Amino acid sequence: MATPAQTASLDPQTQSFPAPSLKRLQNLVADDLKKVDALILERVRCNVPLIEQVAQYIIASGGKRLRPSLTIACAKLCGYEGNRHIALAATGELIHTVSLLHDDVVDDSKLRRGNATANNVWGNKASVLAGDFLLSRSIQLMVEDGSPEVMFIFAATSGILAQGEVMQLIATNNPETTLEQYIEIIKAKTAALISAVTEMGAVITERKDWRHPLKEFGLNLGIAYQLVDDALDYVAEEETLGKAVGNDFREGKITLPVILAYQQADKDEKAFWHRTVKDQHIEESDLQEAIRLIARHGGIEGTLALARDYGDKALENLSGFPASAAKTALLETVDFCLQRAY
Amino acid sequence: MATPAQTASLDPQTQSFPAPSLKRLQNLVADDLKKVDALILERVRCNVPLIEQVAQYIIASGGKRLRPSLTIACAKLCGYEGNRHIALAATGELIHTVSLLHDDVVDDSKLRRGNATANNVWGNKASVLAGDFLLSRSIQLMVEDGSPEVMFIFAATSGILAQGEVMQLIATNNPETTLEQYIEIIKAKTAALISAVTEMGAVITERKDWRHPLKEFGLNLGIAYQLVDDALDYVAEEETLGKAVGNDFREGKITLPVILAYQQADKDEKAFWHRTVKDQHIEESDLQEAIRLIARHGGIEGTLALARDYGDKALENLSGFPASAAKTALLETVDFCLQRAY
Repeated sequence: MATPAQTASLDPQTQSFPAPSLKRLQNLVADDLKKVDALILERVRCNVPLIEQVAQYIIASGGKRLRPSLTIACAKLCGYEGNRHIALAATGELIHTVSLLHDDVVDDSKLRRGNATANNVWGNKASVLAGDFLLSRSIQLMVEDGSPEVMFIFAATSGILAQGEVMQLIATNNPETTLEQYIEIIKAKTAALISAVTEMGAVITERKDWRHPLKEFGLNLGIAYQLVDDALDYVAEEETLGKAVGNDFREGKITLPVILAYQQADKDEKAFWHRTVKDQHIEESDLQEAIRLIARHGGIEGTLALARDYGDKALENLSGFPASAAKTALLETVDFCLQRAY
Repeated sequence: MATPAQTASLDPQTQSFPAPSLKRLQNLVADDLKKVDALILERVRCNVPLIEQVAQYIIASGGKRLRPSLTIACAKLCGYEGNRHIALAATGELIHTVSLLHDDVVDDSKLRRGNATANNVWGNKASVLAGDFLLSRSIQLMVEDGSPEVMFIFAATSGILAQGEVMQLIATNNPETTLEQYIEIIKAKTAALISAVTEMGAVITERKDWRHPLKEFGLNLGIAYQLVDDALDYVAEEETLGKAVGNDFREGKITLPVILAYQQADKDEKAFWHRTVKDQHIEESDLQEAIRLIARHGGIEGTLALARDYGDKALENLSGFPASAAKTALLETVDFCLQRAY
């Protein structure tokens, strides 16, 4: 299922130094993204300095800006020439930021992308409230846009996000979580918002027939992205990932590599998983043993193979769109996610 | 400033057994309130049982339903005869419920209205996420209503609510909080939403000129209500209030009785307030001493006098409305809040 974009980025240089790149997407959206950032900073102004501090901190430490970049690129893909995509890209990024703030509280996380989390710096209280504040700002932005379709999509998405995080909370420490349950969880907590921000590119144009493929594109891309992320937590090096390897293991978060290893585990191995991810009696050497058991049952390969399937679907979803710089950039974005999977 | 309604409820029986009553309001709104409750229960359905449990729990332990009752009564006051007020009353109640859930996490509260708080039963994680879920449901309800005015008001209000809670967080343990700062805090965390739900009664009718007085009515009523509540925390008996007396004191929450006592405190008294509400070194006998110092400087009387001023303003705000059962019930509602202040 190799597409030109996929082949192009797998050039000899990339293969020997496999540094995934979002450059093409970043160049495409750079000007608009500056406007999105300026709008976000304007909207998080608040006469309560603590809220503004927390909001600015989480936005400044904001990583790749994948979601607003996708909204901008998808709007360009649909030939959109207005300005609504700026505010809607900001809305999506704010909803994402809220979920980071609240998830870090819920998961008791100390680090995100190598930086201290907001709850680590300012405490859980400030993080919960700053999240509520940012969510209200995101609602205001979509209300100002005024389109019922836009509001329906974002309102439904924030509900799904919260449901996803609770489903994950319930699955925590339960190695008997099934593949189907796991996919439901990552759809809700990661892919639903990515799907909403890509669909947005078509919603603001006249091309209503492009809503469905862009919605599916984001959903499949989001699932692929999360699958790769979950696999990397059992293989990546601390520096490249920006978070400690084995985080999911230590937190008892059940991801596909563990599910696959557990499904094929013998009695002793089951006892190992029960003691560690279930009962949380984890010793220093247990992460290495977890990695060994996952390798033994092909947990990483199985996870990455599934990621590639979803990535292929995402590429397919774009097949009906005319060639453009935006299309090339979006195909390469799928490739970026999957490159990490080789 | 006694109005007929005020006088009516201060009948001999009420005076000898000063049991505040919301009966007139409750009778007026009973049928519509059933519809609101049914709608809320329908909308909190969720395929994640934990979320639904938490949501049902907090709604079932839901107290007086003051906010949806006010929306219904204000809609009737404006002669409204449609059905939109049901969904909008539910929206306001859901926003209120979210703020209860998140505030109890932020304040580490164990009891609310005599029941265990949701965070006490299910933990902080579930409470944060159930709150996010309910907020998304409230957004969906207002999106379905589809009126930009409605959405603007509710979106702005949820932002103000979050700001208010943070302002309160900052003022915690600081006895030098001023009267002005304190009023700003209770406006944001209590009165803004009450103002939004009363304004809603006019927003859905053709009488745009009634929006402002109803907005002001809710704001003044909300401030009066919170002032009385804050005073009662230093005088009420545990059974009648449904929460322990001295809660605010023990949590280091600075309310007007303390502010007034602190402003007139001598050196020893200042040292007492610093040790207790500021540094949180609180001994068994300190609540009694706090109550004594507040009494010495007229902290309760000062707080209740201010509450009566705001209550009078709220009564004034209704003066331009034609006589109706709804008007009588709303006047009596103000009276209910103030009765507690005598």
